Order: sequence, then structure tokens, then C-alpha cells
Amino acid sequence: MSAYLNDSFLENDEAMLHVSDLSMQRGYAVFDFFRTINGIPLFITDHLDRFYASAIGLHLIVRKKNGELATIIHELIKRSSLSEAGIRIMLTGGYSSDNYHPAEPNLLITCNPVKTATGADFERGYSIITHEYQRELPHIKNINYIMAVWLQPLMKEKQADDILYFRNGIITEFPRSNVFIITKDKKLVTPAHNILAGVTRKNVLAMAAEKMDVEKRDITTEELMNAAEVFLTSTTKRILPIVKIDNKIIGNGKPGKITTVLYQTFLELEDSFVESVSR
Amino acid sequence: MSAYLNDSFLENDEAMLHVSDLSMQRGYAVFDFFRTINGIPLFITDHLDRFYASAIGLHLIVRKKNGELATIIHELIKRSSLSEAGIRIMLTGGYSSDNYHPAEPNLLITCNPVKTATGADFERGYSIITHEYQRELPHIKNINYIMAVWLQPLMKEKQADDILYFRNGIITEFPRSNVFIITKDKKLVTPAHNILAGVTRKNVLAMAAEKMDVEKRDITTEELMNAAEVFLTSTTKRILPIVKIDNKIIGNGKPGKITTVLYQTFLELEDSFVESVSR
Repeated sequence: MSAYLNDSFLENDEAMLHVSDLSMQRGYAVFDFFRTINGIPLFITDHLDRFYASAIGLHLIVRKKNGELATIIHELIKRSSLSEAGIRIMLTGGYSSDNYHPAEPNLLITCNPVKTATGADFERGYSIITHEYQRELPHIKNINYIMAVWLQPLMKEKQADDILYFRNGIITEFPRSNVFIITKDKKLVTPAHNILAGVTRKNVLAMAAEKMDVEKRDITTEELMNAAEVFLTSTTKRILPIVKIDNKIIGNGKPGKITTVLYQTFLELEDSFVESVSR
Repeated sequence: MSAYLNDSFLENDEAMLHVSDLSMQRGYAVFDFFRTINGIPLFITDHLDRFYASAIGLHLIVRKKNGELATIIHELIKRSSLSEAGIRIMLTGGYSSDNYHPAEPNLLITCNPVKTATGADFERGYSIITHEYQRELPHIKNINYIMAVWLQPLMKEKQADDILYFRNGIITEFPRSNVFIITKDKKLVTPAHNILAGVTRKNVLAMAAEKMDVEKRDITTEELMNAAEVFLTSTTKRILPIVKIDNKIIGNGKPGKITTVLYQTFLELEDSFVESVSR
């Protein structure tokens, strides 16, 4: 049993929706995604808070209270027997009678094996390209990634690991990750507007604020290209250095010192989170 | 039997996909939609051509040739026993192993009862509002209608029947319909860029070109508001007059003369299409 639909636990291969669901008719659904370590869901409170906020953003009602949802997720993790898993929780526009207007939402939770970035990935760093684009309804974690998937052939052609969006000269985010720069005077800066507020981003900002100056504000593509260090954050990648952007080497082309310290601190934060919950 | 999935005819309630399909993971799918009259699919060649073009646009491969697909659709119509039906044909990014990269596409065709606009709808006309927005990948008929569905509460509040998108002062299209104006000097004009090329639009342009001057070009919101007549076209609405835009009455607030002539000519075109195929 590694899935849950509306009110029932299911086998993973039973996690199906009818084509009349508004996710398939009109791309209308929100979701959230988080990991478990030793069966403990990381930063689940932040993720559930964002899930409810996304649902409200799309005018969808989650019929279950926050606590009920957390209980279901813990039960699902237990039933799945996976100690390291990726949990995806989705709320759709439901089985629409006219294929256009939202109906009673479908709630679908899945629990599957997950791959996270490794220490070797960190050492290698990412080579990325930039692309002018603004996600629609960026504050809402919705299922529209059509541009990200559509751009995959271009990424392959450019041998890029990921793609950073910008609009009118201001960088925003990656399709599934947030971006940070470290300026030459050692400030940590991340975009403030027109982005999805990542949970890893939030944790990195909080832990960095104890060590250094932190700013949330617009960053131009020019400032990005001249940054001392650049990295991305996400649930599965934690902190990953960006060492090349549109063929320009960032810093000395290796993970920066401050990025490395933040990465190690983040790994410790994960450990202490798991420990505090296990205790 | 009123559905078809990959290689099999199914009952409608079996038309389901697993949540790992890229349509539900990332909103990645194309589709097309057309009607039948007396069991005859209207303008099916145009719709299938556009479906293949949309698939190519999203880098997805339709494993069936055009003729095979037409044969399946005719068989599906027969099995459904519906004489007036809406056929939806969808091709998704498939069951993705990492929930991000496209896999073997899923092809899903459904055949359901359909409602079309009536003569009374035509007489009443539509009251609409405008909204600044540009559809992503507009030439590709993809499932991303998140903005259209998200705007439904606003439409209700404004008591609007539909919403016309514009960008930088240039009008483009409705979420599911194309827009036309008739200028004071009796030219028929419709937007040329950043739109989905509707099949009804194509037919209206061709039949109007025999009677009047026709232009495909940019239309400003100002020109729209001062047009002699405005109407929309779509598969289910055929031709529908726009009588009010953002609370400004268009013309005398009733269906215009030229719009009415085009509507009658379009009804005749439908009849003659059905007749020519039935013969």
C-alpha cells in the first residue's frame, strides 16, 4: 500500500484518476512534494502549510484538516515500508461534468522511492542555461511545468543540468528549485518576487541569517553572472553549486567556500530535524 | 464502449490514467476536440492535422497514422451510439519514471454527449470582460488552462460569459474561442499572432473571403471597443455575437447584421459538410 485516494489506502498501481478529472482536462491541480529520512517526513509542517495555501490559491477546498492529513501521511509511510521516500500530495479540480468548471476535488497521495543529489553531485556542480520565462501563478505550486518539460531537448543540446528563468532582466527561479547568489562582499541574496517560496529556501535563509547578511530582493542577470558563488536549493537537491551559466564559469568553476559551509550546515539541520522527531 | 486507450476500446468509466502520467505530474499533454452531427465528425481532417501538429510541437510521437486514427474514431462513434457527440483525443507525456521526463505517450480518446450554443444563445449574445494574459505555447493545443479556470470566480463576479485575453494592448483570443471584429468599413479582421488557430476560425475566414474583405493582423483593445460588430468562434459555439465588453455596449447591443449572415452561412456549411460525407 503506497497510495491514498480521497478516503482509502491503495496499492500504487491503483492510484489512477478518470480522464474527466480537471488535472487532465485543464491542467488544474496543486501539489506538494517532500522526502522522508528513516521514515520521518522532512519539514512536513512547512510542506502541508504550503499545500493548503496552494489549494486556497486555486480556489480548491482540502476536505481534511492539517492534522488528519499528517496522520494519513504517517500511516502511508508506515504501510509503504520505505525509509527514504518521496511523498507527493496532489489536489485536483475534480471530476468536472463539463470538463471546465471545478467539481469536488480529488486528493491523491503517493509514496515512492526517491533519489537525492549526492556528495559527488555537489563536488561536480551544475552547468546551467538561462531562459526568459515567467511561471504562471508562481506562488501556487500547481502542476503546470509545460515549459520546463518542453525545454528538455534544448537543455540536452546545450548539455545543461538545469535552466534558470528570468524575465525583463530579473532572475526568478529554476523549474523545480530556487536560486541564491553570494555577492563579492559576501552577502547571501535570493529573489523575492514572482517565485515559488521553497521550503529548502526558507530553511537556508533562516540558518544563513545566523552567520551572514541575507537579502531577499530582485537580482539582475548581470549581477548573477558576476556573483562570487551561485547555488540552487530544492527538496531533492538540498544545496547544489552552480559552476557555469550560459558557458561562463562562475567563481573558479568549483563549489564556493560559503556554499560548502551552508551545505554542511544544511546536512546537520536535516540530521537534527530527524533526531528531534525520533526522540 | 465510448473510450479508446492506446490500443483498446473501453467503457467510459475505464478511461483512467495512472497518476505517474506526465499530464498529472507536469500538465504535459496535447489534445483536440470536435463534434459529430448524425454520427459524422465535423471537419475531422482539420482537427486531426492540428492534433498531429500539436504533438510535434510538444516533441511527442503519435504512434498511429492519420488514417488509422480516423478509423478508430469512426468505430468509436459507432460503438458509442451517440449521433451528436464531442470527441476528445489526448496524447500525454506518458508514464514517466522520474515524473519529469517524457516516456511513451498515452493516447486516450473519449466520446461523450455534447452541448452546443443554441439560436437563443446567438440572439442574446455574450457579455465579456478582458484580461491581460498570454497563453503559453499558444500554437499548440495543450491542456494548460489554469488561468482560464482560475479566473472563473472573477467572471462570475462580473457576470461575464467569457474572458478575452490581450497582451500589451493587442487582443489575442478567448480561452477556448477565437475573436473576430467587423470594422466600421465592413472588413472582417481576426488576430494573426500568439493564438491557437481554430478550425471554426479557419472555416469562417474561408467562407467570409467570398463575400467581404478579410484581414489577419494585430487588433488593439481600442479598435476592438470601437468595432461595428464583434463575435467569437469555437467548435461548440460556432459563431456567437459579443454585445458587451467590460460594460461597454458594442454596436446597438444586439447581434450585428454581418455576424448574423456569417452565422447562417456557417450553419449551411455544416449541413453541406454532413451531406457531402453522408452521400
